[in-house]
Amino acid sequence: MDKIKVLTVKQSVFANNEARADKLRSELKTKKVYLINLMSSPGSGKTTMLVALINRIKASLRVGVMEADIDATVDAETIEEKTGVKTIQLHTAGECHLDAKMTEEGIEGFGVEGLDVVILENVGNLVCPAEFDTGAALNLVILSIPEGDDKPLKYPLMFKVADAVVFSKIDTLSVFDFDVKKAEEHIAKLNPQCVYFPISAKKGDGMDDLAAYIIKEVRAYQALK
Amino acid sequence: MDKIKVLTVKQSVFANNEARADKLRSELKTKKVYLINLMSSPGSGKTTMLVALINRIKASLRVGVMEADIDATVDAETIEEKTGVKTIQLHTAGECHLDAKMTEEGIEGFGVEGLDVVILENVGNLVCPAEFDTGAALNLVILSIPEGDDKPLKYPLMFKVADAVVFSKIDTLSVFDFDVKKAEEHIAKLNPQCVYFPISAKKGDGMDDLAAYIIKEVRAYQALK
Repeated sequence: MDKIKVLTVKQSVFANNEARADKLRSELKTKKVYLINLMSSPGSGKTTMLVALINRIKASLRVGVMEADIDATVDAETIEEKTGVKTIQLHTAGECHLDAKMTEEGIEGFGVEGLDVVILENVGNLVCPAEFDTGAALNLVILSIPEGDDKPLKYPLMFKVADAVVFSKIDTLSVFDFDVKKAEEHIAKLNPQCVYFPISAKKGDGMDDLAAYIIKEVRAYQALK
Repeated sequence: MDKIKVLTVKQSVFANNEARADKLRSELKTKKVYLINLMSSPGSGKTTMLVALINRIKASLRVGVMEADIDATVDAETIEEKTGVKTIQLHTAGECHLDAKMTEEGIEGFGVEGLDVVILENVGNLVCPAEFDTGAALNLVILSIPEGDDKPLKYPLMFKVADAVVFSKIDTLSVFDFDVKKAEEHIAKLNPQCVYFPISAKKGDGMDDLAAYIIKEVRAYQALK
């Protein structure tokens, strides 16, 4: 395995984040590169889900992964080892989230030419990343079964900005007190358009549906003028 | 059940947080009130652990709980209903953490006279709360088994500022790939003084040891001149 490329991206205090995010979104649109911003709590299974997803879409789409963390390169190494797709590790210099400028720097350092889809794994945090538009075409949020179905009540903004929510680790539903229907109801009150994917990346349950959804979204995006 | 008291506490942009935290710590010392800052990811089981802990220490210590969340009052209601101790809900006006000023405001609004120990349940977030000293005598951090034993590598500051780490949900060790020894080794590299409590709040495992530790720490603190 090659040594993982690591890039430190720093937040700009002066940036107008929304304008910057819109500009980045429009540039990526021109290049027909679909950016997914993947957000969740620490330990919800972002990386495990990504491996399972990428191995189901990489025959149809050219995929790249930008792994953001405060420290360490374990996730980027796992992705590269288990999927073989192009990967970069972003370090946030202590920051708890990515903003549009950091994402832009990441994309410049990474190089997205020739890719159909870039998945940005944001810092594991259910609060701050929701406040900063990264310029992504899709906000994908994971809520894992062990976390509890009340999380949308306590972290509403994250579930408000989500385009799709993945309920992960559903193979542990018998162990934890999590009502999928109740979680969907909590989210629907904040965000009626949201779509849901219950999955177990470990067992493979629900992964084909999620992969089909991503492929369809990317194709529709690339077909738009 | 009485309606839960809700207080919105706002961050001060100008505060010198460290000096303010030291001042608060010294005031609480004079009053012999032991403040515990409880931190973890969302859904790690802070509230469930608290209920199990309080029901084991409330015969020995007069306990109060300050529940901080961005939104909702579900946790404060649960604590009050299941333990009967004095509880307040703090809302952070969108903030992802508590600082010393917010804690101070919470304590003023709550009223800590006559209490031996006040447990502050910080916002569920493994990143930002670690950066802000609240003035607490003890930083108690929970890492739940479903989150994975690699979390200290990715969120080092949280495990550096911890005085004690609780490994929660150990009744699910057979379901998840979590090596307690490895997690302890990762933490020990950052923080050699840290002590560990593997627990299952649901089954009761390890809870008596944790309760004995808290009672001992509070007694030692109150005995100090």
